[in-house]
Amino acid sequence: MVEFIMKIYDISMSIHRQMPVYKGREHKRPIITNDSNFSNSTVYESRIEMNLHTGTHIDSPLHMIENGSNMDFLNLKDLIRNCKVLDFKRIEDKITAKDLQTKDIAPGDFVLLKTRNSFSDILETDFIYLDASGAIYLSNIGIEGVGIDALGIERDQAGHETHKTLMKADIIILEGLRLADVDEGTYFLFAAPLKIAGVEAAPVRALLLDKEV
Amino acid sequence: MVEFIMKIYDISMSIHRQMPVYKGREHKRPIITNDSNFSNSTVYESRIEMNLHTGTHIDSPLHMIENGSNMDFLNLKDLIRNCKVLDFKRIEDKITAKDLQTKDIAPGDFVLLKTRNSFSDILETDFIYLDASGAIYLSNIGIEGVGIDALGIERDQAGHETHKTLMKADIIILEGLRLADVDEGTYFLFAAPLKIAGVEAAPVRALLLDKEV
Repeated sequence: MVEFIMKIYDISMSIHRQMPVYKGREHKRPIITNDSNFSNSTVYESRIEMNLHTGTHIDSPLHMIENGSNMDFLNLKDLIRNCKVLDFKRIEDKITAKDLQTKDIAPGDFVLLKTRNSFSDILETDFIYLDASGAIYLSNIGIEGVGIDALGIERDQAGHETHKTLMKADIIILEGLRLADVDEGTYFLFAAPLKIAGVEAAPVRALLLDKEV
Repeated sequence: MVEFIMKIYDISMSIHRQMPVYKGREHKRPIITNDSNFSNSTVYESRIEMNLHTGTHIDSPLHMIENGSNMDFLNLKDLIRNCKVLDFKRIEDKITAKDLQTKDIAPGDFVLLKTRNSFSDILETDFIYLDASGAIYLSNIGIEGVGIDALGIERDQAGHETHKTLMKADIIILEGLRLADVDEGTYFLFAAPLKIAGVEAAPVRALLLDKEV
């Protein structure tokens, strides 16, 4: 079916109690508990409680837009497709329209923004983000999706303008990626989220596939 | 990268409060609540609490074997690969070694067992399962994985012999599939589970890919 020998890049965060969460907010830390084990049962079973924006996840418009569409309306084909990893790891604060102009971005693209978030301990604090000018630039091109190695695609912008600009343009937002091991280039993205009905976001095991070199 | 036009079969259960759960046990029903919405915040966020064996999921040996290996030890390449869907929808009770002998199953295969569970309202009660003789037959062949359209791969067998036989042979167990729309044949399986650290099981958005006809 898929004939080439694949290389698989796991670009997802590991989910556990001490993982980084958005701005270090305690209610975003997952709680993993034991339902049964071999001291009280014949089976070992665990349980998880988590905010749906924990770790690697996809946002739908309902997250930021009242009566926006929820995850049920995403098309799997838009999440299982080619994508472009763009390297912005030298950027110190935020990705702007001017930064994006240096890259080859075309209508219909799904772009993943690789920043120093993938290398530094800044995920809970002053993480690199896509600013409002960058979101407008990408929506004007007409991309279909954008991912970033931050737990939010923006921070500290009044009115969440990056999210809203992207959502109004029906651009899929994929957050919480880990891109340290992935060079700039084209890959096959696999980002089918957990199938939770009627919600505004869902966790995903995001992967990139490439031909084995 | 993947050059053909894909057809995607979503073989996952939808996760919601009223979904079928193993034997109808209340503690396996997911609890989805709202963390914030537009009446009290500028963002809408949900939270989920669920047993890790809810809906479509993968079991690791730790689920049934004390000190068995957990999900961290699964290799993604074993979950992103070709598989065979085998049609057993005429079976009325359980799949045995004798039933499996009618199918082409080879060493290294990942087989998905399609039964009337995918069509009937029996998931919480007398669902079709793989019996101990079938598990021994598959482990003797040397398959690498087995999936089924039931919330457990067995029921009502003393000592959970089906699980234990498969786990001792390092055969991956994928439960909670929905196979009504998939005919017998070969497909490309995508079953990378949520990356939860150190646990015995994890939910997965399982898909089959095929060439578009």
